[in-house]
Amino acid sequence: MNVNIRGQTRHYRTVTFDAAQNAGLLIEQRLLPHEFKIVPTRDFRETARAITDMIVRGAGAIGATAAYGLAQGARAFRGRDLKKFSNHVETVFQTLKAARPTAVDPVNAMIGLREKMRHGETVEEQQVLALAAAEEFANEDARHCQEIGEHGAKLIRNGMKILTHCNAGWLAFVDVGSATAPLYAAQAQGKKFHVFCDETRPRSQGATLTAWELAQQKISHQIIADNAAGHLMQRGEIDLVIVGSDRTLGRTGEVANKIGTYTKAVLAARHKIPFYVAIPLSTIDWNLKSGFAIPIEERHESEVLGAWGVPQSAGSNRRGKNSGKSVYVRVANPASGARNPGFDVTPAELITGIITPAGIFKPRELWARRARLMGENR
Amino acid sequence: MNVNIRGQTRHYRTVTFDAAQNAGLLIEQRLLPHEFKIVPTRDFRETARAITDMIVRGAGAIGATAAYGLAQGARAFRGRDLKKFSNHVETVFQTLKAARPTAVDPVNAMIGLREKMRHGETVEEQQVLALAAAEEFANEDARHCQEIGEHGAKLIRNGMKILTHCNAGWLAFVDVGSATAPLYAAQAQGKKFHVFCDETRPRSQGATLTAWELAQQKISHQIIADNAAGHLMQRGEIDLVIVGSDRTLGRTGEVANKIGTYTKAVLAARHKIPFYVAIPLSTIDWNLKSGFAIPIEERHESEVLGAWGVPQSAGSNRRGKNSGKSVYVRVANPASGARNPGFDVTPAELITGIITPAGIFKPRELWARRARLMGENR
Repeated sequence: MNVNIRGQTRHYRTVTFDAAQNAGLLIEQRLLPHEFKIVPTRDFRETARAITDMIVRGAGAIGATAAYGLAQGARAFRGRDLKKFSNHVETVFQTLKAARPTAVDPVNAMIGLREKMRHGETVEEQQVLALAAAEEFANEDARHCQEIGEHGAKLIRNGMKILTHCNAGWLAFVDVGSATAPLYAAQAQGKKFHVFCDETRPRSQGATLTAWELAQQKISHQIIADNAAGHLMQRGEIDLVIVGSDRTLGRTGEVANKIGTYTKAVLAARHKIPFYVAIPLSTIDWNLKSGFAIPIEERHESEVLGAWGVPQSAGSNRRGKNSGKSVYVRVANPASGARNPGFDVTPAELITGIITPAGIFKPRELWARRARLMGENR
Repeated sequence: MNVNIRGQTRHYRTVTFDAAQNAGLLIEQRLLPHEFKIVPTRDFRETARAITDMIVRGAGAIGATAAYGLAQGARAFRGRDLKKFSNHVETVFQTLKAARPTAVDPVNAMIGLREKMRHGETVEEQQVLALAAAEEFANEDARHCQEIGEHGAKLIRNGMKILTHCNAGWLAFVDVGSATAPLYAAQAQGKKFHVFCDETRPRSQGATLTAWELAQQKISHQIIADNAAGHLMQRGEIDLVIVGSDRTLGRTGEVANKIGTYTKAVLAARHKIPFYVAIPLSTIDWNLKSGFAIPIEERHESEVLGAWGVPQSAGSNRRGKNSGKSVYVRVANPASGARNPGFDVTPAELITGIITPAGIFKPRELWARRARLMGENR
């Protein structure tokens, strides 16, 4: 999507590849929203480290990064011995897999890549196929998000006020995003609307990443405390909710997403406000039989007990540029601890619809349509 | 309540008065939870400034501070001329009233004080009566909170997990607090329980003040992100919710309180978890006919866009002492703005009961009992 730098607007993807230098090119997401910077990864180990260190995050984005990383590693091999090449590729695969052990997208992306590589009969042919497959993976991720946008944009009417939670934006994918895709598509259609970004404590991805994205795209928006959505709904100030999902259960229609999503769904149901979840088909889990079986990661308490930001005078610089480095500040009472569940599960009954690249479905419709949906999935 | 300083436990009130020095003594609440300090106010203008600058905050606490401030100003008068004295007291009254123009507690406290002073026939008699009345006001505030605690403690059983929002603790009153009163009373009865403190963004009073109070009182507790309560309720980890209130409508049973209270009430109702509001009788508004008529203060966006804390390494010092000064950090995207409603309104249907010094009532019962409740109110 667009990024504005010193008055110039340019299109970027979260991850691309420089074939001449055999280097990955990543948006350094840890510096956002305070600084925009592209960093190169010079070999597959650096690419793996970029995933581990969260320079790049988000299901689609780390899938594509791993795919590029596998091609990068394969292309660095010197020699013609297919057996040695295959061993080398296995090392690359395991290194990238270990970069974020619980994530499924990098593994799935790399398995697909390796299958395509095997059509090559020489090392060189396999190297060429690897990069082509990585580019294809990235393009497909972006295209799927665009399709989500086209379906979802139909839900957006002029003048609407739309709530979103966390960042299921283009920074989490290669481009366009999932929950943000309908916003970008509706904007392209000339529709006018306003977005409320939940701050999304404890990691504040709404206040940082989603707000940054919407500002770059010049979409009207305001950040709100996670506490404020209920009040705004009660006063008729929210017309539509769109969120993303880390895992959607194909059998039950339950949706696991960032902590606080469930709360927004409960509030939306009470106020009869449509609540939609936008997902690429790859995030549907066709196996699990209950949302209670989804393990909920308990994250480090320091996230709840403090915040990251750039020191400045309160209110002094409200719409300006930040200067200086982001630091961690301890907000909470020094002697107190915290609970920090990272995700929650929203039941199907609270979800109006699931926006996918293949169309919008009722959550309990997914299972009946599974043949079609699994067929369309990469 | 108790405060632990260098291994010593001592009892403090948020505000007391040093008659010999004619000085107010206030807990400097802006330094909490990072530092505990008592500051003197040497004359009524300093006392007014302490209210304006939020050294002291909370309905009961600023009521008592204004009462002491009026006595302090009256006692500083030199001379025997009752007419001049009366003019001087009027200046003191207006100065303290202007310190926090929207608050009703300081005004009500001072009106009561002035009535009692008029029983004195000389300047000196009125000065003596003023201080006695201020002490009586403070004692009554503490006693009312103790009564809330005695009624509310009946709701707490061994092993319960209790959610609270914001700070309706003793720091907001002279002592004991409203929402925290049942916790302190249950602890005194030997009951064991665990408290989840909502962080309460944007001003984080739960993570700072409530957590500090509970830690001083050695009550088992953890801070949670405001986003986490829904998930914990879903998993059966919350048995009871107790919050405070800034204004409770006697006619409808609606409760205005810190932003996010309404959300917790909606979640509690969905999970059939009892939701109680603890209030002194002075916060009941017998006039307003609808919660929608309560003006909702829109506060400065910098509260949502950043946070206050002490810089340190993330997770390095998790249960230790903070060192250094609290600073403001900008968390959010520099180019984005925020909406910041400070309060919300919870309808009667979501409230299990209102805990008052006169007993526990259904919210819609208040109006029928108004004769009794207004009679008991100071």
